[in-house]
Amino acid sequence: MTKNKPLILITNDDGVTAPGINALMAVMAEIGDIVVVAPDKPQSGMAHAITMSETLYLNKISTENDPVTVYSCSGTPVDCVKIAVKEILKRKPDLCVSGVNHGSNSSINVIYSGTMSAVIEAGIEGIPAIGFSLSDFNWNANFEEIKPFIRKITLETLKNKLPKDVVLNVNFPKLKQKDIKGIKICRQAKAFWAAKFHKRETPQGRDYYWLSGEFTNPDQGEDTDEWALNNGYISIVPVQFDLTAYHATKQLNTWNWNE
Amino acid sequence: MTKNKPLILITNDDGVTAPGINALMAVMAEIGDIVVVAPDKPQSGMAHAITMSETLYLNKISTENDPVTVYSCSGTPVDCVKIAVKEILKRKPDLCVSGVNHGSNSSINVIYSGTMSAVIEAGIEGIPAIGFSLSDFNWNANFEEIKPFIRKITLETLKNKLPKDVVLNVNFPKLKQKDIKGIKICRQAKAFWAAKFHKRETPQGRDYYWLSGEFTNPDQGEDTDEWALNNGYISIVPVQFDLTAYHATKQLNTWNWNE
Repeated sequence: MTKNKPLILITNDDGVTAPGINALMAVMAEIGDIVVVAPDKPQSGMAHAITMSETLYLNKISTENDPVTVYSCSGTPVDCVKIAVKEILKRKPDLCVSGVNHGSNSSINVIYSGTMSAVIEAGIEGIPAIGFSLSDFNWNANFEEIKPFIRKITLETLKNKLPKDVVLNVNFPKLKQKDIKGIKICRQAKAFWAAKFHKRETPQGRDYYWLSGEFTNPDQGEDTDEWALNNGYISIVPVQFDLTAYHATKQLNTWNWNE
Repeated sequence: MTKNKPLILITNDDGVTAPGINALMAVMAEIGDIVVVAPDKPQSGMAHAITMSETLYLNKISTENDPVTVYSCSGTPVDCVKIAVKEILKRKPDLCVSGVNHGSNSSINVIYSGTMSAVIEAGIEGIPAIGFSLSDFNWNANFEEIKPFIRKITLETLKNKLPKDVVLNVNFPKLKQKDIKGIKICRQAKAFWAAKFHKRETPQGRDYYWLSGEFTNPDQGEDTDEWALNNGYISIVPVQFDLTAYHATKQLNTWNWNE
């Protein structure tokens, strides 16, 4: 291990065996010393959940002679970041990367995403952090096309410094490298998931439901991540975890709270 | 049911049997027509998690003659809001309230909280929404003292209109009604949980961990929710779900993304 190499923590929400995290490991191994701590099973849609009423298990998957240290954890992506920082890493990492997610985490998905919640948790803990997602849910998605961009974005982030309390949400369109038009700094599109419940019956006659939904985006702004992805660009949204709606404070202060 | 009464959806993350949600039901029943859809078990720390790879069950707990319609759901607080809106309520509710949480959801806890994620989900779906939390983790906490304030805040929110894409995070100090100094509109304090893992061994000799943590608040601002709570005030933080760090856009646009 070279002393000057950055220490990079890698996690995801699709689980430690996902092709997406392997792509990320391959790129990061050329940039720094990497440690992988990822969920032992898929954790999509877990958002910023933490495990408080159950126990956590940690399994070292790599052996002493492996070039990379890999752990799986029985918890959520946020648990992975917490346990990595507190129990595994000897010092605070220089960077935390999460992904590459199988499927986009643009727009409102940043709130449901385990991938991005791991990134936000790192941000809360003062670690520069980037989430990468590819707009392709296929388990065998082609991550080769985006590797040069992952490398570029990571190096640029390490060279410059992220603004305080800001992490990056990077989404890639499903395109060949040569067809990607470039990188755009965007805002989160104001979209939502129109929920749909599939009602079924157990063999014993009890009703149950499957949650699904349809992504609905009425926001046609050309400065959004959705626009960028739909027009051949890689979107980068700077993400904050101070949820205070400062713009609403003045209006709320005119209400009669204390009479 | 009076036609002009507001339709109020009630949920929480401590589960349908928690004293906190009963206090909320008591106050809301005097204000509107209420429907309760809450988790069938505690879901603290579930954040904005949704249930995608498991089935959901819905149980109608109330009977036809009960004055209030109550369902329990096997999913997360966010699942509860989604299934209530889509499968139970005949029209979009006029208000969604969540809580009263046993324990505060001030500062960074807004991100981990199931109570507040239900509120944010309602906000995403265009429903005015308020989360209520009491700074007392005790199951037998005294909710009587805060009932008049819950009523006041709810009526004020129904009378005025919440700014678009903004929901409210209300936290109460653990005080007698007469000792509460008033209501303050605040910002989220920049605090974090310093994680602590308790390492133990199963009877079979396998290591496992319990996650806990220590709330750490270096933010001494007197405009924060933490300051308000520690100084005898009820804190209200307006919360947004557009996580874009707009203030960071300019700086990020100076980086060399596309050369």
